[in-house]
Amino acid sequence: MYGIILAGGSGTRFWPISREQSPKQLQKIVGSETMVQSTIRRLLPLIPIEKLYLGTNHQQAIETHRQLAPFGFSGNHIIAEPCNRNTALAIGLMAKVLVDKDPDAVMSVFPADHVITDSESFIKVLQKAEALAQKGFLVTLGIPPTRPETGFGYLQQGSKIEGFEGACQVKQFVEKPDLNTAKQYLEEGTYFWNCGVFIWKAATLLEELGKYANNIHSQLENITNCLQNSKGNSTYLELNEKGQGLFSSLPSISIDYAVMEKSSKVALIPADIGWNDVGAWNALDDVSEKDSSGNIIKGNVQALDCQSSIIQGQNRLIAVLGLKDTVVVDSPDALLVCAKERSQDVKKLVEALKKNNCPEAKLPATVKRPWGSYTVLDSGPGYLLKRIEVLPGETLSLQSHQHRSEHWTVAAGIADIVLDEETFQLKVNGSITIPKSSKHRLGNPSSELLIIFEVQFGDILDEADISRYEDRYGRC
Amino acid sequence: MYGIILAGGSGTRFWPISREQSPKQLQKIVGSETMVQSTIRRLLPLIPIEKLYLGTNHQQAIETHRQLAPFGFSGNHIIAEPCNRNTALAIGLMAKVLVDKDPDAVMSVFPADHVITDSESFIKVLQKAEALAQKGFLVTLGIPPTRPETGFGYLQQGSKIEGFEGACQVKQFVEKPDLNTAKQYLEEGTYFWNCGVFIWKAATLLEELGKYANNIHSQLENITNCLQNSKGNSTYLELNEKGQGLFSSLPSISIDYAVMEKSSKVALIPADIGWNDVGAWNALDDVSEKDSSGNIIKGNVQALDCQSSIIQGQNRLIAVLGLKDTVVVDSPDALLVCAKERSQDVKKLVEALKKNNCPEAKLPATVKRPWGSYTVLDSGPGYLLKRIEVLPGETLSLQSHQHRSEHWTVAAGIADIVLDEETFQLKVNGSITIPKSSKHRLGNPSSELLIIFEVQFGDILDEADISRYEDRYGRC
Repeated sequence: MYGIILAGGSGTRFWPISREQSPKQLQKIVGSETMVQSTIRRLLPLIPIEKLYLGTNHQQAIETHRQLAPFGFSGNHIIAEPCNRNTALAIGLMAKVLVDKDPDAVMSVFPADHVITDSESFIKVLQKAEALAQKGFLVTLGIPPTRPETGFGYLQQGSKIEGFEGACQVKQFVEKPDLNTAKQYLEEGTYFWNCGVFIWKAATLLEELGKYANNIHSQLENITNCLQNSKGNSTYLELNEKGQGLFSSLPSISIDYAVMEKSSKVALIPADIGWNDVGAWNALDDVSEKDSSGNIIKGNVQALDCQSSIIQGQNRLIAVLGLKDTVVVDSPDALLVCAKERSQDVKKLVEALKKNNCPEAKLPATVKRPWGSYTVLDSGPGYLLKRIEVLPGETLSLQSHQHRSEHWTVAAGIADIVLDEETFQLKVNGSITIPKSSKHRLGNPSSELLIIFEVQFGDILDEADISRYEDRYGRC
Repeated sequence: MYGIILAGGSGTRFWPISREQSPKQLQKIVGSETMVQSTIRRLLPLIPIEKLYLGTNHQQAIETHRQLAPFGFSGNHIIAEPCNRNTALAIGLMAKVLVDKDPDAVMSVFPADHVITDSESFIKVLQKAEALAQKGFLVTLGIPPTRPETGFGYLQQGSKIEGFEGACQVKQFVEKPDLNTAKQYLEEGTYFWNCGVFIWKAATLLEELGKYANNIHSQLENITNCLQNSKGNSTYLELNEKGQGLFSSLPSISIDYAVMEKSSKVALIPADIGWNDVGAWNALDDVSEKDSSGNIIKGNVQALDCQSSIIQGQNRLIAVLGLKDTVVVDSPDALLVCAKERSQDVKKLVEALKKNNCPEAKLPATVKRPWGSYTVLDSGPGYLLKRIEVLPGETLSLQSHQHRSEHWTVAAGIADIVLDEETFQLKVNGSITIPKSSKHRLGNPSSELLIIFEVQFGDILDEADISRYEDRYGRC
């Protein structure tokens, strides 16, 4: 069986940890790994790393590959989409890629940002689903509801499928219900949460996609023909310009709406696997370890007399006293404090921040780049201080700035420097001034992280003030 | 009339804004000025700046003078105590200084960290008190209680003093009562809060001090003879070594206990002046402006659906949602979130931090020095990054370090540099490396703030690694 991870999300309900440019699946929301790392690790007992694929968006592809490389995840198994067109196209494209390799491929699909606490049951359910998929079914997992949830879609159980214990057909897919309907569903016991996990033969899915969404299906071959290695380090696959145009021109539609709600081949396997979509901060209550007072505490925290609270710190000291049902989440440039029951409304809060043009709504304090990251540490009239981290073997573009000069001091590692006609190395304690308009380049030739403090000087200090002459990541 | 400000306190109940080394009176807790600045401003309609004096401790003297210099407050009117010996000695010393200048001086005494919202009534009460003091009374202001407070001492009203409307003798001083007693006091209407404001002739006070605390009184002349200008810039008065010895050897005792509870000359004037001792964060409810939902909000804050909460931010973004009766106070290196009703227990929280050796319990992120301040912005194995601010005209000591080299980049202003035998200036964008063991000095010759980014390199990066050869602040 092959596994497909859909990792294109960009939620704001985990702000300030997740932001538009640093989405939830790439963050450590639960436990010590990021959510996409946990998703991969959970599947490895059943699906070897060589049979896992991942779809993400263009902006997150490099970081996603960095997080998965330690597992041996190949860049050739990451497809970066040029824009978001929902799950029908993303899944269709993956199915086409798989069928071209292996016409009999059974393919399972998983969101990258959910938690499943009962891994053993999960694996057993997937094995059952694989057998069912081999028979030509489009299998979906149904989570037995534990509360009248109005935030999920539901699947209604149909007649049993013979020869497959527990499996049944799906009578209907239902959209997010209102509270009364959700209560009724919970009572009736024949409704399940739709958790977005699917198992089917790639060929079956393509067939059904051809039947019910042929506008998408008919372009899949053309689009897969446009897949190429990403520029620079080739750490993922991307579409060439033609492919990007084709991809973008297709409708944005979910696989549920495009196929599952229409096909007669859909089967459901109830899956009591401790599934949680980790939709907002209060979801940690269901999936994280608590202290004896019901608190979930992480980071540099001093807590006194707190109850049922979620305190997520980092390096900075957080001291909390007498809190109850409160969420405190700290990050270097922004802090959230909210009533736990209002966790869902963090979304509204972030909308308000966007409306007020707060950069913290979208951009994290540490901004990821293909070569590493930068963090603004201080700024004032005419100057700006950055900490720059260049990953081993990476290099920034050959560039110049019209409005600023820069002064670099190496704090850790070795720097390869190009400055106009000169090329040389700087070690720890070394420093250099980059005059305005000079062509320069910074690289890390070593196997250790390079850390530079950069002080920028000028009347205009703006990321947009950059002319690129050469760039290994295709950003010229 | 002369005014004496007692500014030696070092509370922790306003942590993380106040810390052991940055006490409450020097912070902007209420309004746009620090508490000691507000205290001075409140008195100016009655007492000219030339007649105001201030007592503080050795560590806070320079910063206190910096805050008061804009008012024209002379360094010769600031007496820095070598250690804390409570109010009897501090007040006795001030009385001796005043009597030596002006034998008929009427002296009023004010804590530096209280708020009085009705300034007009306050001034009127002080004028009445001055007249009473002229008659030889030790006058204290009594605040009509508004709640059964167990945290204050009380004064019981005695018989009326003829010819002074409202003034009366004090039947007794009572220590902090238990709740039932406090309720009884409130009901009886003859008890007042002791707010620590006193008005008397300096000569009367000295006479009574001689009667009831002669061990202190008998040393006052010797101690005042030891007053000298502080080293370096002479921005305050301090005791020479002999004076420090005398001062330290005297008992630590309050003026209430030493004199007021014993003297028969004590008079009380009820003072309905909007007094508040601003004892903890929840006191802001009584003295700060609120929005329509009862919140007190300061700094870079986005609030949604909050009620009766106190949100004190700085530059970093704070987003709050659905909070009620909650206190959030942010600072660059530490954050407090607490239930408002637990404000008094912030003290306990800080004690816990001290027990765990958290540096944030004592030291603020920006550490004040006689020449300006520094802030650690980043650190890692073998390096440490500081932002250094040198005030106009100030200069660091001529120094060397055994274990570290340093690299300086000037971000704003002009730097005077001494490096071994060389002397030169650096301007914005200039930089220099200070090798290990070299003698060096940094000064600000201009009238603008000097800002330097300093990167330290070495295996041991410690404030204690410093040899001083010359220092204008006497720290050699």
